[in-house]
Amino acid sequence: MRTITWNDEHQVVEMIDQRILPQDFKILSFDNYQDVATAIQTMVIRGAPAIGAAAAFGMALAALKSKAKSREEILEHLRTAGDILNQSRPTAVNLSWAIQRVLKSAEAFEGSPEGLRQHLIALSKQMADEDVEINKQMASFGAELISDGDHIIHHCNTGALATVDWGTALGVIRAAHEQGKKIHVFVDETRPRLQGARLTAWELEQYKIPYDIITDNAAGYLMRKKLVQKVFFGADRVAMNGDVANKIGTYMLALAAYDNGIPAYSVTPISTIDQELLSGNLIPIEERDQAEVLEISLMGRRVTPKTASARNPAFDVTPARLVSAWVTEKGVVYPPFSKNLQALLEGK
Amino acid sequence: MRTITWNDEHQVVEMIDQRILPQDFKILSFDNYQDVATAIQTMVIRGAPAIGAAAAFGMALAALKSKAKSREEILEHLRTAGDILNQSRPTAVNLSWAIQRVLKSAEAFEGSPEGLRQHLIALSKQMADEDVEINKQMASFGAELISDGDHIIHHCNTGALATVDWGTALGVIRAAHEQGKKIHVFVDETRPRLQGARLTAWELEQYKIPYDIITDNAAGYLMRKKLVQKVFFGADRVAMNGDVANKIGTYMLALAAYDNGIPAYSVTPISTIDQELLSGNLIPIEERDQAEVLEISLMGRRVTPKTASARNPAFDVTPARLVSAWVTEKGVVYPPFSKNLQALLEGK
Repeated sequence: MRTITWNDEHQVVEMIDQRILPQDFKILSFDNYQDVATAIQTMVIRGAPAIGAAAAFGMALAALKSKAKSREEILEHLRTAGDILNQSRPTAVNLSWAIQRVLKSAEAFEGSPEGLRQHLIALSKQMADEDVEINKQMASFGAELISDGDHIIHHCNTGALATVDWGTALGVIRAAHEQGKKIHVFVDETRPRLQGARLTAWELEQYKIPYDIITDNAAGYLMRKKLVQKVFFGADRVAMNGDVANKIGTYMLALAAYDNGIPAYSVTPISTIDQELLSGNLIPIEERDQAEVLEISLMGRRVTPKTASARNPAFDVTPARLVSAWVTEKGVVYPPFSKNLQALLEGK
Repeated sequence: MRTITWNDEHQVVEMIDQRILPQDFKILSFDNYQDVATAIQTMVIRGAPAIGAAAAFGMALAALKSKAKSREEILEHLRTAGDILNQSRPTAVNLSWAIQRVLKSAEAFEGSPEGLRQHLIALSKQMADEDVEINKQMASFGAELISDGDHIIHHCNTGALATVDWGTALGVIRAAHEQGKKIHVFVDETRPRLQGARLTAWELEQYKIPYDIITDNAAGYLMRKKLVQKVFFGADRVAMNGDVANKIGTYMLALAAYDNGIPAYSVTPISTIDQELLSGNLIPIEERDQAEVLEISLMGRRVTPKTASARNPAFDVTPARLVSAWVTEKGVVYPPFSKNLQALLEGK
């Protein structure tokens, strides 16, 4: 079962509702791009590669539902849909990457309006398939970095649920496990939305990989006690200086890894690298609803005062100096990032 | 209202039940030391200075309830009580400090068994009063470190609730506020038990100090955005090399402060300094029940898989190199810790 998939019979895009996992499992269907944008915003679907795929399917739905009679009119609708989908979440670059790819392909398409509609459905399905392939390539390169017996800290969720299927950082861990390496994962719970405690723990149970959930606060302790050999996380946007925007807390995790001489790896498809952005300082950081911080209960009791307020940045930027390597589908990029990425992309 | 106090009429020690704050406010009474030990273990009362006071009152109760007819027999009972109280929590040194002080005073006391009982009640009341005085002295020294307009990150709860009254790190912040300095506190929620989101937020509301709760993960982001000028935390045990055992997460917080050139201060009474311990690496770290990590709900939904397991270290050790200064009741100790502490203690 994929996180997101196209239903040919009903001409809708289907997604696992990740807000209610692991207690409930439910598939939601969407037949228009506005609802897809809302699904991305409310995190029915999340994870940079997964929301890229959702945006592509959203664009296909925009073309499909457009009553336009000309190719130009559909293109006009697609540009509007692209703007709205792109605004659903600001940090992950995969949204605009996917939207631009669909728009360019639509602009280059020569044929009937109905042909264009079918072309965009086929393209978004192809992009979803490609995501799975890319993840498996990253997993193959990344698994080489994991040794038998490693204890690994993993932040947020970067598994099948964060992608179309298989996963980025968690996909690497899964590949190492399938290679027969004995590994143990310390799952950062990843406040505020607890994607680690909710989704990564749930995935690891499916894969039968041993794990313990830890509070994000405990990562540094475990490293200082020499109970951890590797740190893995994904990426929501990588700048050309190698800075990595990722789920809030990644920066402090990477700092602790660096302070203890433990390698910290970002697993990132090329589509998550913003080749127009020179520095991570320029990445827009989403600030989400206070309720995600305030509406928390511990052992059955709500904890915050009723009148409390909160700040809730959803991402932070880890400077390149704290990243040991970036795992892409073309290979592992070691520092300096920009030079070695360029060499990899040029096939040198 | 003090966190912990002696009730002369009923000859019991009374404590605010901190497990149910801020939703409920309830005073619990204890008439024997075994229940005091359980109250410390289950965190009815917490915070290094507060549990020191609780241990002293527990010792007084042990003498009071002892049916012993001789001074020697009471001393024997006190040693047993001391062992049990000391085992209730391993990390904060204030427990053994308080127990040793009571034991030594009992051993030096020359008089009737009943006289000894009254002596220990008076002593434990005096120790509680002294704690408040010490906190106010630390607050007076520490407030000098805070400037008008500062935004301060504070970890865990170190306020009136963590002490007999007034507080350590939060007491410093409160003193700066009372001096008329305009300050804003970013309250680390402090997983797993959320003492920040529960207790510090509640205290700040009483003091009318502006604050926002943040996830522990967000501290690094705010520092990198230059939205923070100071970091304050307490201590559960300080070694003679200046290493600070404190609530889990302090190490990663101090690392982020250091990485951003932001001063990080530990506010610690002399009683929390373990003058027999050479290094923080020797401090025993309590690992608590998994349920504190696993039994968490977000927006009304339990999040972890039913079969999940967790690791739950309650403290970590921040190396002295990350601490800008230690605020004590004798003055502010700058690095190198041991030499400058010695000079302060000798009144140089």
